[in-house]
Amino acid sequence: MASSALQIPAAISSSTSAFLGRLPSNNKNIRSCEVSLPGRKHGVCKCISSPSAEQTAYKTKVTRNANMAKLQAGYLFPEIARRRSAHMMKYPDAQVISLGIGDTTEPIPEVITSSMAMRAHFLSTVEGYSGYGAEQGDKKLRATIASTYYKDLGIEESDIFVSDGAKCDISRLQLLFGSEVKMAVQDPSYPAYVDSSVITGQTGLFQKDIEKYGDIEYMRCVPENDFFPDLSTISQADVIFFCSPNNPTGSAATREQLTHLVQFAKNNGSIIVYDSAYAMYISDDSPRTIFEIPGAKEVAIEISSFSKYAGFTGVRLGWTVVPKELLFADGFPVAKDFNRIVCTCFNGASNIAQAGGLACLSPEGLKAMNETINFYKENTKIIVDTFSSLGFNVYGGKNAPYVWVQFPGRRSWDVFAEILEKAHVVTTPGSGFGPGGESFIRVSAFGHRANILEAAKRIKQLYK
Amino acid sequence: MASSALQIPAAISSSTSAFLGRLPSNNKNIRSCEVSLPGRKHGVCKCISSPSAEQTAYKTKVTRNANMAKLQAGYLFPEIARRRSAHMMKYPDAQVISLGIGDTTEPIPEVITSSMAMRAHFLSTVEGYSGYGAEQGDKKLRATIASTYYKDLGIEESDIFVSDGAKCDISRLQLLFGSEVKMAVQDPSYPAYVDSSVITGQTGLFQKDIEKYGDIEYMRCVPENDFFPDLSTISQADVIFFCSPNNPTGSAATREQLTHLVQFAKNNGSIIVYDSAYAMYISDDSPRTIFEIPGAKEVAIEISSFSKYAGFTGVRLGWTVVPKELLFADGFPVAKDFNRIVCTCFNGASNIAQAGGLACLSPEGLKAMNETINFYKENTKIIVDTFSSLGFNVYGGKNAPYVWVQFPGRRSWDVFAEILEKAHVVTTPGSGFGPGGESFIRVSAFGHRANILEAAKRIKQLYK
Repeated sequence: MASSALQIPAAISSSTSAFLGRLPSNNKNIRSCEVSLPGRKHGVCKCISSPSAEQTAYKTKVTRNANMAKLQAGYLFPEIARRRSAHMMKYPDAQVISLGIGDTTEPIPEVITSSMAMRAHFLSTVEGYSGYGAEQGDKKLRATIASTYYKDLGIEESDIFVSDGAKCDISRLQLLFGSEVKMAVQDPSYPAYVDSSVITGQTGLFQKDIEKYGDIEYMRCVPENDFFPDLSTISQADVIFFCSPNNPTGSAATREQLTHLVQFAKNNGSIIVYDSAYAMYISDDSPRTIFEIPGAKEVAIEISSFSKYAGFTGVRLGWTVVPKELLFADGFPVAKDFNRIVCTCFNGASNIAQAGGLACLSPEGLKAMNETINFYKENTKIIVDTFSSLGFNVYGGKNAPYVWVQFPGRRSWDVFAEILEKAHVVTTPGSGFGPGGESFIRVSAFGHRANILEAAKRIKQLYK
Repeated sequence: MASSALQIPAAISSSTSAFLGRLPSNNKNIRSCEVSLPGRKHGVCKCISSPSAEQTAYKTKVTRNANMAKLQAGYLFPEIARRRSAHMMKYPDAQVISLGIGDTTEPIPEVITSSMAMRAHFLSTVEGYSGYGAEQGDKKLRATIASTYYKDLGIEESDIFVSDGAKCDISRLQLLFGSEVKMAVQDPSYPAYVDSSVITGQTGLFQKDIEKYGDIEYMRCVPENDFFPDLSTISQADVIFFCSPNNPTGSAATREQLTHLVQFAKNNGSIIVYDSAYAMYISDDSPRTIFEIPGAKEVAIEISSFSKYAGFTGVRLGWTVVPKELLFADGFPVAKDFNRIVCTCFNGASNIAQAGGLACLSPEGLKAMNETINFYKENTKIIVDTFSSLGFNVYGGKNAPYVWVQFPGRRSWDVFAEILEKAHVVTTPGSGFGPGGESFIRVSAFGHRANILEAAKRIKQLYK
């Protein structure tokens, strides 16, 4: 039963979260995968295995959305979950450590949680109660985000849209752009960009031979090009999704590279959707925001999040910057249409989470967030040193909580299996982020220190 | 300045929230409208008034999404906000009372806020911290929603998807269905159904003469048909949005009517999206959920919310039921695709809000929610009695926090203006919910008792 319960998700889930590297870290999550599959009794498995039984069930006459049918996603991480669980059944006493999941593990600083608790309490009082807030977010939070992260860059409170997380706004942005635009994306990259593009109808079918969807420009980012794409090879790109520091490679684009990207967008009339969710992890002088680049306000949108800064992965809070200077071809401001999307398809982030966001940006909150970030960066250094000392080519880490380790000539999946089998450590096969990730694994630095150290010890033992 | 600041939103906002009847209840909201308009400097007004200036600005080559351009929404409520503000400037000493906004006003019961505060505190502890939750929602909350609202109806935990509010899931459902389906909707109805359909590309252009979008079936709901549509007139309806108790008419469909609706869907192979966000306000034996109707699980999805039960309009928590029995024409379970949407475009409701939802469904929480609901229902009775005593045809109220008052032969806007001018009371013109709402006004029962009583007194004075 357990195993079948685990196999079913692989057949039908296309959780982007899975692509995020969110392996079930315990049975709870595995169960949640199982319970999240209402269609089990009519599942793909059954459709295939007993069509006759299927035919007896009543069907509506509504045709399934062809874009949903294109989605190939959902095989990688449920597969990892299954392998991990199978591994745990094979080695019931093994202490499996997950360095695959990109989920935060450290508590939220008390200065932040106490503000959320206080806001919750206020809601039970006549003077403290508030109902609907502005869909665009609390005015003070928007102003504080602008002054904290975009000081002197010409980004105003009115350019900031508070969200329930960057992932959610990625889909709202796709809805804004519609099905007629052609997107370009870094390869490898966070799969939500591609998945949401497929759902919105911007792409062709998945081409199994090259592991790419039709009508998407995959911009290869590998060590040979310093993880910055050769833009001259791009034929058309209306919307360019660009994540820096990058998930999964951990590479942060330099000022020169981003200046080149902005110039390319301007020359081609493209819109850049810049994901800066890991910007506070930057250690060198790489830009923290695309808006540090002159002219970016006319070509770029920026999405960001409190998730990896304050451990808000479960609290849900982020923001998107849509500068008033960004215009469609007909001169219509992109921000106006995004405002319509936010007002029609969203109703604002939770007021309690927004109180937490405001606390994050207080002097004490910023100090506490930086301490948490530094803790994860120490984890990162341990992981980088571990693989480096073993002679591997190690990338990322310096400006991101992800380490990108190369295993030349080997397939990501084989490396994943080897590390799991011999070290009881879960990583993420690079190929899960796109064909450009083949022969790499992503190692996450989110974890308790003891687990990171133990994993490092086992990996050194394995590859010594 | 103030007036121009107020006029701009009208020109460019298409806030569905506005259509919800969410008039700015104070300057804060009006300001938030203003600050939510990053495009002011390139606004529609300016495009029209000074195209030359517009031409000097850099434009991308990305074409604006034609579906966004179809949206006509956003004129009604910014217009109300403007009239309300103009009224306040004309009568600076007037105590304007809003019975237009559908926003909750009473504090959240302490038993619920304390659970949210406790969860927030736990997040600052090693043992209490949790990161990403399941996108589909906390397992225990899903199970409790199923057992509380769908007991003995065959709805299981795995059929429940926890959301950040019904409004948000309406758009996620549209994304699920895609642009090829034809929708039917009650006229009048909550505008998010139509707006999200337009954005998703399911509709034709707005036809100003009949105030309807092309390719949408408007199902007229008026006193003459007991606010239940004549289904025999519907030519095609893949997806039928049906809200009961209805916003704005306040009418709840009877068991016979819903049985008829389910049978119609079955005969036509349609999918019903049933909005039960006001179900706990039902006083008679009308069904609380579509799943009380035999066979509904094969044809219906149900969306609901804690917003109007527990005052969660700002906390953001709701749920959607997608039964495993609901299948597309090819036999593929709708719930599997919705699961993919939820996993790709959403990341779960805030864990703190979910803790509040669980508290709502505890014995104490349910008791407290019912007390709040009963308070609003007392408000409703005051409003119903007020208009009834004046000889008006009054509908709704009994099963919903909305009262639907008819002014035969008069235009909704004229009645709205008259009540505002002479009683300093803001209502909602029925025509804002669709052409079927013409000659009606919607009066909301959400408000502090003193305001409701004062408004009643003024209206009696006005129409005595």
